[in-house]
Amino acid sequence: MSEQSTVGVSNLTLPNEREIRVERVFDAPPERVFAAYTDPELIPQWWGPRGTTTTVEELEPKTGGRWQFRSRGEDGSEIVFRGYFREVTAPERISQTFEWDGMPGYVSVDTASFERVGEQTRVVTTSIFHTAEERDGMIESGMEKGMNETYERLDELLAQG
Amino acid sequence: MSEQSTVGVSNLTLPNEREIRVERVFDAPPERVFAAYTDPELIPQWWGPRGTTTTVEELEPKTGGRWQFRSRGEDGSEIVFRGYFREVTAPERISQTFEWDGMPGYVSVDTASFERVGEQTRVVTTSIFHTAEERDGMIESGMEKGMNETYERLDELLAQG
Repeated sequence: MSEQSTVGVSNLTLPNEREIRVERVFDAPPERVFAAYTDPELIPQWWGPRGTTTTVEELEPKTGGRWQFRSRGEDGSEIVFRGYFREVTAPERISQTFEWDGMPGYVSVDTASFERVGEQTRVVTTSIFHTAEERDGMIESGMEKGMNETYERLDELLAQG
Repeated sequence: MSEQSTVGVSNLTLPNEREIRVERVFDAPPERVFAAYTDPELIPQWWGPRGTTTTVEELEPKTGGRWQFRSRGEDGSEIVFRGYFREVTAPERISQTFEWDGMPGYVSVDTASFERVGEQTRVVTTSIFHTAEERDGMIESGMEKGMNETYERLDELLAQG
């Protein structure tokens, strides 16, 4: 159990030189949080920083299945994110690779676990990179700000009940 | 410098829990060894264990370029290997991701360096995996036998002059 359990606050830590760990509690049970991660109708409602528009181009949430999202910024620029699911166990765990088209061949493995805490859900996400340089590059790209905006949008979606 | 410098002998070591390092000296200068790794006409002449037939389906040896090879076994079974090049610096260094279609989302980064040693070339290849389990799985799959057959075929190609 972690000391961090306040809804709306992300706890980002660096367990070793090639990992990022993020813990955050959402005010909804695991089934609803898990659905937000895997339902192609719900993902565009929260995925990505504010101001971006996400289109789900592929989503096959099962072992070996592909996913691909296109994210359009307010200036019209587009970025494609994609990868494969390594494990999808509802409503407990999702492990998937994460790539973006700007850096082909740079791949992280993101694993989210969904833990029931009363009526809430603690989501722990670990991102593993091949090298320390890749991990540090992700942090320096401003991922924490984008992540927090994304999670706030998820809070808002879940609050709609 | 390593103590290992005999042509025809691979030296496989495990520097840490998620890496495999292989060192081998080839009896040709770096330019010829590098060409064998990047020329679509030469790759089918040595790539893969004995008895397999390799078809180069994509090969764009530059940063961000894709590669995809189809390997057909003597029993007619086919395996597709693919990835992206992260760095290609002739005749010194090639870094690329490595995946096979049987396990989508399991990606290693293979980096080969080509060092001139007189008229010969020392090739040091490191394979980095996301986890120790993936590294161990690769070793247990029989990769060392396949690798040695592959390198023997490369020795034979280079001996053709």
